[in-house]
Amino acid sequence: MSRSAPRVVLVNPNTTASMTEIALRAAQEVAAPGTVLVGRTSPTGPASIESHVDESLCVPGLLQAVAEETDADAFVVACFGDPGVEAVRELTGVPVVGIAEAAMKSATLLGRTFSVVTTLERTIGRARDLVTRHGLTAQCAGLHACDIPVLELETDPDGTYDRLLKVSAEVLRHDDCDVLVLGCAGMADLPGRLAAELGVPVVDGVAAATTMAEGLVRQGLVPRREGELAPPVPKAYTGVMGQVVPAAVRLSTPGDPPASTP
Amino acid sequence: MSRSAPRVVLVNPNTTASMTEIALRAAQEVAAPGTVLVGRTSPTGPASIESHVDESLCVPGLLQAVAEETDADAFVVACFGDPGVEAVRELTGVPVVGIAEAAMKSATLLGRTFSVVTTLERTIGRARDLVTRHGLTAQCAGLHACDIPVLELETDPDGTYDRLLKVSAEVLRHDDCDVLVLGCAGMADLPGRLAAELGVPVVDGVAAATTMAEGLVRQGLVPRREGELAPPVPKAYTGVMGQVVPAAVRLSTPGDPPASTP
Amino acid sequence: MSRSAPRVVLVNPNTTASMTEIALRAAQEVAAPGTVLVGRTSPTGPASIESHVDESLCVPGLLQAVAEETDADAFVVACFGDPGVEAVRELTGVPVVGIAEAAMKSATLLGRTFSVVTTLERTIGRARDLVTRHGLTAQCAGLHACDIPVLELETDPDGTYDRLLKVSAEVLRHDDCDVLVLGCAGMADLPGRLAAELGVPVVDGVAAATTMAEGLVRQGLVPRREGELAPPVPKAYTGVMGQVVPAAVRLSTPGDPPASTP
Amino acid sequence: MSRSAPRVVLVNPNTTASMTEIALRAAQEVAAPGTVLVGRTSPTGPASIESHVDESLCVPGLLQAVAEETDADAFVVACFGDPGVEAVRELTGVPVVGIAEAAMKSATLLGRTFSVVTTLERTIGRARDLVTRHGLTAQCAGLHACDIPVLELETDPDGTYDRLLKVSAEVLRHDDCDVLVLGCAGMADLPGRLAAELGVPVVDGVAAATTMAEGLVRQGLVPRREGELAPPVPKAYTGVMGQVVPAAVRLSTPGDPPASTP
Amino acid sequence: MSRSAPRVVLVNPNTTASMTEIALRAAQEVAAPGTVLVGRTSPTGPASIESHVDESLCVPGLLQAVAEETDADAFVVACFGDPGVEAVRELTGVPVVGIAEAAMKSATLLGRTFSVVTTLERTIGRARDLVTRHGLTAQCAGLHACDIPVLELETDPDGTYDRLLKVSAEVLRHDDCDVLVLGCAGMADLPGRLAAELGVPVVDGVAAATTMAEGLVRQGLVPRREGELAPPVPKAYTGVMGQVVPAAVRLSTPGDPPASTP
Amino acid sequence: MSRSAPRVVLVNPNTTASMTEIALRAAQEVAAPGTVLVGRTSPTGPASIESHVDESLCVPGLLQAVAEETDADAFVVACFGDPGVEAVRELTGVPVVGIAEAAMKSATLLGRTFSVVTTLERTIGRARDLVTRHGLTAQCAGLHACDIPVLELETDPDGTYDRLLKVSAEVLRHDDCDVLVLGCAGMADLPGRLAAELGVPVVDGVAAATTMAEGLVRQGLVPRREGELAPPVPKAYTGVMGQVVPAAVRLSTPGDPPASTP
Repeated sequence: MSRSAPRVVLVNPNTTASMTEIALRAAQEVAAPGTVLVGRTSPTGPASIESHVDESLCVPGLLQAVAEETDADAFVVACFGDPGVEAVRELTGVPVVGIAEAAMKSATLLGRTFSVVTTLERTIGRARDLVTRHGLTAQCAGLHACDIPVLELETDPDGTYDRLLKVSAEVLRHDDCDVLVLGCAGMADLPGRLAAELGVPVVDGVAAATTMAEGLVRQGLVPRREGELAPPVPKAYTGVMGQVVPAAVRLSTPGDPPASTP
Repeated sequence: MSRSAPRVVLVNPNTTASMTEIALRAAQEVAAPGTVLVGRTSPTGPASIESHVDESLCVPGLLQAVAEETDADAFVVACFGDPGVEAVRELTGVPVVGIAEAAMKSATLLGRTFSVVTTLERTIGRARDLVTRHGLTAQCAGLHACDIPVLELETDPDGTYDRLLKVSAEVLRHDDCDVLVLGCAGMADLPGRLAAELGVPVVDGVAAATTMAEGLVRQGLVPRREGELAPPVPKAYTGVMGQVVPAAVRLSTPGDPPASTP
Repeated sequence: MSRSAPRVVLVNPNTTASMTEIALRAAQEVAAPGTVLVGRTSPTGPASIESHVDESLCVPGLLQAVAEETDADAFVVACFGDPGVEAVRELTGVPVVGIAEAAMKSATLLGRTFSVVTTLERTIGRARDLVTRHGLTAQCAGLHACDIPVLELETDPDGTYDRLLKVSAEVLRHDDCDVLVLGCAGMADLPGRLAAELGVPVVDGVAAATTMAEGLVRQGLVPRREGELAPPVPKAYTGVMGQVVPAAVRLSTPGDPPASTP
Repeated sequence: MSRSAPRVVLVNPNTTASMTEIALRAAQEVAAPGTVLVGRTSPTGPASIESHVDESLCVPGLLQAVAEETDADAFVVACFGDPGVEAVRELTGVPVVGIAEAAMKSATLLGRTFSVVTTLERTIGRARDLVTRHGLTAQCAGLHACDIPVLELETDPDGTYDRLLKVSAEVLRHDDCDVLVLGCAGMADLPGRLAAELGVPVVDGVAAATTMAEGLVRQGLVPRREGELAPPVPKAYTGVMGQVVPAAVRLSTPGDPPASTP
Repeated sequence: MSRSAPRVVLVNPNTTASMTEIALRAAQEVAAPGTVLVGRTSPTGPASIESHVDESLCVPGLLQAVAEETDADAFVVACFGDPGVEAVRELTGVPVVGIAEAAMKSATLLGRTFSVVTTLERTIGRARDLVTRHGLTAQCAGLHACDIPVLELETDPDGTYDRLLKVSAEVLRHDDCDVLVLGCAGMADLPGRLAAELGVPVVDGVAAATTMAEGLVRQGLVPRREGELAPPVPKAYTGVMGQVVPAAVRLSTPGDPPASTP
Repeated sequence: MSRSAPRVVLVNPNTTASMTEIALRAAQEVAAPGTVLVGRTSPTGPASIESHVDESLCVPGLLQAVAEETDADAFVVACFGDPGVEAVRELTGVPVVGIAEAAMKSATLLGRTFSVVTTLERTIGRARDLVTRHGLTAQCAGLHACDIPVLELETDPDGTYDRLLKVSAEVLRHDDCDVLVLGCAGMADLPGRLAAELGVPVVDGVAAATTMAEGLVRQGLVPRREGELAPPVPKAYTGVMGQVVPAAVRLSTPGDPPASTP
């Protein structure tokens, strides 16, 4: 039964497989015994997600990856903007947890306020939208950038850590927050060291989302399939997007190019 | 100079050209003398937008259509979920107005409260998100569906009008709102009749967004190109989405399949 | 028909005619071809509006000026506190746009956050009330004064510009906002230069309100005349205010002194 | 010393003296021993206040009445829209309490939620603004009208009471609120009977404001005279409003018509 | 009758009697002629209240003290965290005013914003909760600590005053608030001197709550006894808490140890 | 190491041991392999918690029970009012999860809105406070009572289920919420049957809190021990509460009665 061995699929909505690996390792460190963790990288889209354009263009690939995982008990969407989370809920009918929402809500269990340290300044707007959307305005003490592009997180791990430590210490002094939240899946290997050095809990969204997804599965909770999250009605597709759309939501008409699997 | 003859491009993010025609006519009725209005239909994506999945999969086509209009002074995004509006802002650097935001903000100029009548129940969640995002919680008296799928609006205009009138009258009685907002670009030809019959102002988002876009152009206002709305950094693309992404935001690497024009 | 040639009346609620001229010029620069713009100065009240007392005592004159314009399609109230806007709506039954509301809502179409630079520190409270009233708390990054009294804006244009530029640059650095809003009708000639120098859009409320008023007229939208904005019931008047009140809202009793025209 | 015998001036901003009498009696019933209560009726303006126009045109007379009371320790503004309260604060520098604010805040000391029963439907908008302004959105369970014009409250006391009782009982059943607030100074003689019959506390704003004003005086609290509530700078006046404006805020120029006293 | 000579009981929820004396003197200075003021010190619990643990463990003693005062017309709970206020309401059925709520609401009658200066940094969280609970987020300009433990306020009055003056002046400069609120019953003797020196009103919660309690009694207002504030149903008690619980809310079973009186 | 075998202590803050059993079984059903679950019943206080008085008087016993568990990795507080959660955090320094907060936050991961069905009407106010405190106002579609006292839940399980089913179905129809939350630890055995019958996810707080507590432990997250949640400073105690207070927060003075263990 799924409850005793939940299958949780972690999907990386950008197309950089090494980042999926980092996230998967972070998830594995916190997963309960018996949980089956699967990592998936989006098959098509941008290499990293740092703008509204990137965020828009990553979702089709995310949905493709998701559609291929037909026996998942839950999904984790491993990008701090939580792109496509509601579309994945519609498509799958199982619990879906975005890492930003999971990180912020976990943080609120640990103290009155949290601050976020993310990659580039320009991504703060999207994080602000999520804070508002989830009702966390009063709990969020600040949103800050460390000015490291996503793909650089991996290529220069020592520089990244030093920079993140410096910015986090400043944030802590300025915001006097109770918890720090790391705002990128690519930072998933860093919270332990940071927490030890700074003396505050540091939440990584991948770990937080993984335990929340497991928890929802263990509780046997599945979203309602009426109203907003009912299965989407299949639609006719024009042009190249017809190759990307999962078959379940595409209306087949004779002569169509083949839809995405499965 | 653009201020004396603004070029406003109305983009329909779904692929149904007849709906673009309805929206364009509604825009033309309210446009000022001298404004050049252009209608564009998304070249690729779903035929209509009624779910989070549809909304996710319509944006790439929307961005393609937008990227081909290089001398626009402003864009109107003609779908009530305001999909991709922020991505279009990043991409173009000119004023971009979504019809939901424009309709709701216009409504607030006319009275204390407004109610929305949209197509399907399941789209109300997205409208709620926009209400929250724009700070209009106190002004929005209610969000309601008339249970007519988008594509049926055209095929049965009389039935549509009767149904919309009936629902709107009920909404008015129940919410006692000062203004009604129609929640679909496909309803753009109906507000005049409804207003006359109901005795309240009825706002269509296409008309509202068109006049707001013109107004921003006439004021010579262009968004800041630093921070959140700076031009996006081009990214490497994997797979079929590389054919959809506008060339300006794609990092070309040797051997790539050709990017979308221009 | 009014839609093809909207008549928009811009009313200055203080009694300084030169300020009306500045505002009218700003309106004319952005008005669409065919729009008929009329400027009116309040016939009675304070020379400038910089306190709650001023704001209270300017409204009777504003209503007088409005009552004399019986064929207006829309009104613009040209004072950043939006005094009397709701009373003008009741009195006239046509669209009425205050310049503060118009400026702030236009700003929100251009970016995530705006900051206001107004005249005296003491007027910030009223601006704060409007921000709250219109649901823009999250969008308003700051409210600031440049410490120039309203009437000095005209007498020392160069000093004003330099001071405004200096304060605006500081505000931009401190608030990191996406848009600046100028908080006084007397600043209506300055946004272009400021925007060019600062690299952010600078919104003037007179221009914003003018295009919004035109837009509402072109859409044929008129407020509901039931409930809060129904025509006011005429009342018996005692004392000198009986000379100020528009005839339409005064209950005539034999022996009354003559009411204000028309 | 003022603390031992506070002089509290209750100003009725409409020109109907009989309503001042009702309010004054309500104030006298709750005033502490030693408090000197004075009732003042506005010398000029509308007979009753039931619209935004009325509210705008009552304030000049209110300020006149206030300006003549130079040795007041505190003012109560006896109209449920709290018109001109901030202007009176600027003008006088002593505590000023509006009856709506006082009633609502007193209600929140007695239970989690309150509902308001006011006169005409059209006045609810203004009450809503006050609820928002004072941060009481979550505490206000509803705003309701009993559809009795202000001046009828006196002429048909029995009919008024019956109607108010009926509406209040419905409100109580519908909103399940902990406290009722009466939304008109003209209802100041009714709360005791209503409370006894309905089994909930019923707050009258005149009584609430009187005790709050006394309390502020006994505590020796006076508003700060810097910033928003600094004494207003005198202004030049044009036209008939020059006869209404209190002398303290009018800039005298040779040849002026005489300003209002003192 | 109680209205002409209200009996107001001021309960100090910690067990330090000298602090009750300070608070009682502050109450006596502002009470109206004829009011009977009684001071009570909690019979059991911590000597001072500076943590969530202290706050939890002070309430049983507070309820004991309250239960012994059977002819009170109103209660003032003299600790800035407003501990147990709702429990006291349930238990007694008369008006109960916490000093934090009273101070903050009084402050809002005097200006747009207030800031709080309290004792230890760690108590700010509880004050923040009260700000949120009472809808005062927009009105509260800041919450600050002077880092003096509660019990030190008495032992070093001069040092306390100097420190409080210094911190208050900084707060005033930083928050530019209109009113200061002192966040501890032990500071009840200081507001007059501070206000004179700083030029802003300084509110002490004990004085504010005393006048508000008197006011509610004079108005004859008593809370509804249905719903949330209905008399609590007596319960069976296990263990030592059975000695603390007021008899009225304890279910007696044979062999019980004697309950608390009366 | 604690992460591989977290020890989670579930504390029932009322003194009814059979309810602890129900809650513990619900926790065991969802706990991950390897988690050590311990159930504790408060040693002193009321038999059930249904009023503000009960809530106040249960916390001392809760703290006693907590203080005796010195090697817990996390605590679950098993009462829907989340009593004493912050005090337990101060006292222990490990993650502490209240079942109301956990249930509500879990619900928000599954859909846009949730409604709560709790025991008695009078407890809704406390639940409302928690909704506000956690920023969930927009997500909470309604708070409802089934009018079954806590202790009756056990004595009449069939009647309880039928009543809960009936009320839940009505709530679902009225609120059209996406998720139901059961508002009492004593209902912990019912969500599965209800969900199956109603077709919506039904969240029990005990299960939700257990998985969240496990998740926090697996992530190695511990609260910051500075500021609001620093270890409380020990205090001198007077009277019988000196027997209840945990030794760690009591200042020992010679001749004291023995403090609570350990």
